[in-house]
Amino acid sequence: MKITNIIEETKSISSNIKNAYIDFSKMTISLVAVCSDVIKNGKPVIGYGFNSNGRYGQGHLIRERFRPRLLEALPKDIINEDGTNFDPHKMWNIMMKNEKPGGHGERSVAVGTIDMAIWDLISKIEEKPLYQVLAERYGNSIPNRNVFVYAAGGYYWPDQGLQGLTDEIKKYLDLGYSVVKKKIGGASLSEDLKRIEAILKILGPNDQLAVDANGRFDLETAISYGKALSDYNLFWYEEPGDPLDFELHKELSQHYLGSIATGENLFSVQDARNLIRYAGMRKEKDWLQFDCALSYGLVEYLKIIEMLKKYDWDTSRCIPHGGHQMSLAIAAGLGLGGNESYPDLFQPYGGFPDGVKVENSYIKLPEINGIGFEGKSDLFSIMKMMTD
Amino acid sequence: MKITNIIEETKSISSNIKNAYIDFSKMTISLVAVCSDVIKNGKPVIGYGFNSNGRYGQGHLIRERFRPRLLEALPKDIINEDGTNFDPHKMWNIMMKNEKPGGHGERSVAVGTIDMAIWDLISKIEEKPLYQVLAERYGNSIPNRNVFVYAAGGYYWPDQGLQGLTDEIKKYLDLGYSVVKKKIGGASLSEDLKRIEAILKILGPNDQLAVDANGRFDLETAISYGKALSDYNLFWYEEPGDPLDFELHKELSQHYLGSIATGENLFSVQDARNLIRYAGMRKEKDWLQFDCALSYGLVEYLKIIEMLKKYDWDTSRCIPHGGHQMSLAIAAGLGLGGNESYPDLFQPYGGFPDGVKVENSYIKLPEINGIGFEGKSDLFSIMKMMTD
Repeated sequence: MKITNIIEETKSISSNIKNAYIDFSKMTISLVAVCSDVIKNGKPVIGYGFNSNGRYGQGHLIRERFRPRLLEALPKDIINEDGTNFDPHKMWNIMMKNEKPGGHGERSVAVGTIDMAIWDLISKIEEKPLYQVLAERYGNSIPNRNVFVYAAGGYYWPDQGLQGLTDEIKKYLDLGYSVVKKKIGGASLSEDLKRIEAILKILGPNDQLAVDANGRFDLETAISYGKALSDYNLFWYEEPGDPLDFELHKELSQHYLGSIATGENLFSVQDARNLIRYAGMRKEKDWLQFDCALSYGLVEYLKIIEMLKKYDWDTSRCIPHGGHQMSLAIAAGLGLGGNESYPDLFQPYGGFPDGVKVENSYIKLPEINGIGFEGKSDLFSIMKMMTD
Repeated sequence: MKITNIIEETKSISSNIKNAYIDFSKMTISLVAVCSDVIKNGKPVIGYGFNSNGRYGQGHLIRERFRPRLLEALPKDIINEDGTNFDPHKMWNIMMKNEKPGGHGERSVAVGTIDMAIWDLISKIEEKPLYQVLAERYGNSIPNRNVFVYAAGGYYWPDQGLQGLTDEIKKYLDLGYSVVKKKIGGASLSEDLKRIEAILKILGPNDQLAVDANGRFDLETAISYGKALSDYNLFWYEEPGDPLDFELHKELSQHYLGSIATGENLFSVQDARNLIRYAGMRKEKDWLQFDCALSYGLVEYLKIIEMLKKYDWDTSRCIPHGGHQMSLAIAAGLGLGGNESYPDLFQPYGGFPDGVKVENSYIKLPEINGIGFEGKSDLFSIMKMMTD
């Protein structure tokens, strides 16, 4: 049993939108295939992965450091004890050989992308959905296939206007979402409040709005927004300040009593632990958004879950960033609180297998071996092209 | 006035050594030239830079993201108000456009490397040594050209033995160093203590030893070492635990009363600030080792200095990692406590201009425009090859 090849292609996910921090016109992602010599149904089993939006593709780091380490590894260093499957933890250790501690960015994306493909591969070899494998190995053995999802949108785009914004949100409600998210901080506070109120007017009694500042605010601005936002019953107030300014988050939580969400720009268990240690996050109401595809993959995410348990946090407080099926599988297998979803953006990478419907902001995951990419035809056609 | 080209070459700095975390057999660095159309002595002025050891070269990130942004920038966005020189702060902002907050690794090296070349360029355009430019712009206008340096070595290498180790250290003492550093944590505690005691026997009454664990220890091991090391009067105990485990550092400082040094694996002002906020570092005895070449360059380092001042830390507590002339210039210009030096390693990149002698662990910087690379013939011959 061996890895025969690791293929990477850097793809554009350029788009006309921007959030408070970046515009997406030059954004890229890495699409990865990890090819094995294990034969199922007459064909070698291949696992696929990609990184989520917001950080760039990492083709060169993959080719320079992580791919060669895996391809040069001895079989005993990447295969489990019984020799029945690859061992993602061993493979992770191989990838991280000769990497110094600290400095968790970029390479965390490269490793996270390959790690996703490895988990897709091993659950296909086990001939089970990944959520089933995870529930059996690390959970209570029964996955919960009903997963909460919310619609992330409400970016700023040219010539949008309030009508353009509410038309977009209305579309999400019509798709079956009852929680929708919009960006803040790309306009003045007063203009942002107008945008928020325009949306609140079209929400039904069971719908809720979340807002996302993408880490843009200093403490003063974060508190000003916090005070203004306290008038609304928001689902959450996301990433108010710099992701590493734990003091800002702690101080803000003294002024904003609603839920705060953050963590998408913390890419290691060490950084996640510092958030829990120092940021005054409240385990009964706040949300953790660590995204395995950007942060060394599920092997690291399992360490984050262990860490959270030590600090008495429940995994149901985790709703990852990124909107990919990998986090859906983790949510179903390990009892996360749900997953982000971008109904309009970053396609065909995000989203659900074909035919999956959103109802009251929940979906039910179908039974597809692996992560489920084969069930999403627009995505899988691109993946397949890479390996055919 | 414009930037005509940015050239990068990835170079091997492979070597037979290892520290507690990595071996250097596949280590690379990026060498960068930033070329301008400013003519001095009949030739276009060129600035050079490179990243220091321990993190990998970043040629691809430079070529994919940071080089094109600088080359596509409008002149007004990279030149100072009077139009007399490039503006490194503006250039930094251009490089960091469309980069999300958090995730400070790899790209921090790419930007730090280019930033070094930019400061070399602007001080050559000003026809002054960089330390003079820095003292005038950000310091008390008079540089202190006498800079403390210590010899970093004492790595583990095959067939070394105590004799090989003490021979190496003796060479550093003979070169004029009175502070020398060895690695710990690559052997058992008892073996490490034997190595330390072998060195202490050959040190003179005014010499001191520092030890460096390269972030390897968990809390228990860090404390065990700390207790054992308390018997010696060490210069410092460096990077005992994971660079982001501030709680470990804080707890250790309750058990180890000697000086602790850390910071080489924190690559942003946000991470540096968290060290100051949370790690229990003692401003009267501990040392900060942030290395601009790995952490977004001097523009970011100036922000770190501002941050330190807010927390009432003196810049004399900073002795950067890396052993490059850029940190020597910053030390002389802005009053840092000194700089690392690798007499035997990572050549020709580290070290001093030709003819500079170490006396009692101090050197005197010569008057060379820019960072001083032109004064180091083995290094400059490589740089020149890249641009000729």
